[in-house]
Amino acid sequence: MRIGIVGAGALGLYYGAMLQKSGQDVHFLMRRDYEVVSRQGLRVISVNGNFRLAQINCYRHGEDIGPVDLVIVGLKTFANPFLTALVAPLLGDKSAILTLQNGLGNEELLADAFGPEAVLGGVAFLCSNRGEPGEVHHLGEGKIRLGEYRGGLTERAVSLAQMFNLATVPCEAVSDLRRARWEKLAWNIPFNGLSALLNRDVAALLKHPPIKELIRQLMYEVLAGANAQSLEESIDVSGFTDHLIRFSEKMDFYQPSMMIDRLQGRSLELEAIYRIPLLQARKAGVEMPRIAMLSALLSMGENDAGE
Amino acid sequence: MRIGIVGAGALGLYYGAMLQKSGQDVHFLMRRDYEVVSRQGLRVISVNGNFRLAQINCYRHGEDIGPVDLVIVGLKTFANPFLTALVAPLLGDKSAILTLQNGLGNEELLADAFGPEAVLGGVAFLCSNRGEPGEVHHLGEGKIRLGEYRGGLTERAVSLAQMFNLATVPCEAVSDLRRARWEKLAWNIPFNGLSALLNRDVAALLKHPPIKELIRQLMYEVLAGANAQSLEESIDVSGFTDHLIRFSEKMDFYQPSMMIDRLQGRSLELEAIYRIPLLQARKAGVEMPRIAMLSALLSMGENDAGE
Repeated sequence: MRIGIVGAGALGLYYGAMLQKSGQDVHFLMRRDYEVVSRQGLRVISVNGNFRLAQINCYRHGEDIGPVDLVIVGLKTFANPFLTALVAPLLGDKSAILTLQNGLGNEELLADAFGPEAVLGGVAFLCSNRGEPGEVHHLGEGKIRLGEYRGGLTERAVSLAQMFNLATVPCEAVSDLRRARWEKLAWNIPFNGLSALLNRDVAALLKHPPIKELIRQLMYEVLAGANAQSLEESIDVSGFTDHLIRFSEKMDFYQPSMMIDRLQGRSLELEAIYRIPLLQARKAGVEMPRIAMLSALLSMGENDAGE
Repeated sequence: MRIGIVGAGALGLYYGAMLQKSGQDVHFLMRRDYEVVSRQGLRVISVNGNFRLAQINCYRHGEDIGPVDLVIVGLKTFANPFLTALVAPLLGDKSAILTLQNGLGNEELLADAFGPEAVLGGVAFLCSNRGEPGEVHHLGEGKIRLGEYRGGLTERAVSLAQMFNLATVPCEAVSDLRRARWEKLAWNIPFNGLSALLNRDVAALLKHPPIKELIRQLMYEVLAGANAQSLEESIDVSGFTDHLIRFSEKMDFYQPSMMIDRLQGRSLELEAIYRIPLLQARKAGVEMPRIAMLSALLSMGENDAGE
């Protein structure tokens, strides 16, 4: 399958590398890493064993890639104003677009521009960071849950999941993408925000009892918002929260992406991870006061006023 | 009147200096500033005009002061485990104790140790910071509202207020000290905590719309907690919030004490300003979720676990 990767950050580089290694024909749109990767390839430093891909198809402009069967989007959501312009040159008549970006609102942007039938979304439970140019660090996990923007379990979604599994990336096709998105938010909303605000990794946050309690309360709020979205099947709030806490306790000293974004002076993904979920919950009649407070606290010092 | 000052930080130094300048017999218990002040006196750098007191009665040990008519307590509340031991040597049969410390719980500590009839409390609306040793900076305001721990307007409280007024410190005796304490908390809870957490002064906090809105929400929570305390007269939530916001907008670049405490690596006054108010509100059936969240966020990195 001819695959284009838009947004070659930690996530895009890792999944792209795994797919190429499994034999797929992968093409990366790159900015920061272009020079180094085109010269010396890509090095994946992974808990599952390091490897190097000596030859990477990398490009500065989407026009040089041209139409692909599948576009995988790993762009940071604060760059979403450029999203459709970056994706457009890679689309042919039957191209599918799979966005693995954080939070809510990404599928909607793509669907508005290219039609809802083209769009799939997925949530990635991946611990990865960018290293030096030409390197990507895979620290743990990696599972993807993907589904159609329009809902329902399609052959296309199932075969994409199979492609990832063949590349040794655990992947599951789901019927209710929105449910998967909200489940992921139940992790992102507490851990991304608190790690960025307090400059502490996952282990340090969970080790401090008042913050562990706050994490639970934030998860309850997300899941109340989730269960108001007329999901195919509602989420068991208490059981799923326990599961997420246990899952996070295995993550150890992992620094969530928003913590790294703030440390490195980048924008935070407040729109996708906080503001759109807050709006969608409110539309469904659910207030999430602690999440609104966290969003306000994080917006201090950001360029946009957060209004 | 023979007066002892316990806790000669920015507040103790400023009020002590004003009282001495007005002719009172003031004795300061000092740690940090002892050497410099005993050698060269105290310099007050004030928006109302600078002055110097060449001769200050300063002491390292309360035993060297002995009994006074009035003890004024300006100790940081995180030092409250030492409070009664510091005050005890200054007490005679008829001594009064006036605590101008932040938050809740201070009068109770003193009343348990020395009897409720000895204790008065006051809230100080004072913008002051310590400068170099031997200096105190008075940046604005200074008004005190004081009252009896046991409630009711007494001659003693009125005459103490008069003493402050004669020293050109605006002061009012109030019948309901608890109401005054909670009104002050409506400022301390948002501004102390947010300034310390976000490392921003009052002007910067108010300039950022999502934070200004959060400040209002925090004030509403405090005042809901306050109005559940069977005050003599309940507080007009909306009017008082508007008043506090306007009052704060005149403070400009003021750095609240908790912001300075954190910048200088000192403990934060979480017990007096957050945890005891949260407990007292809960006892009265009022939850203050945003305040609990702020308290948890601030407790990260503090020595005590905040449980």
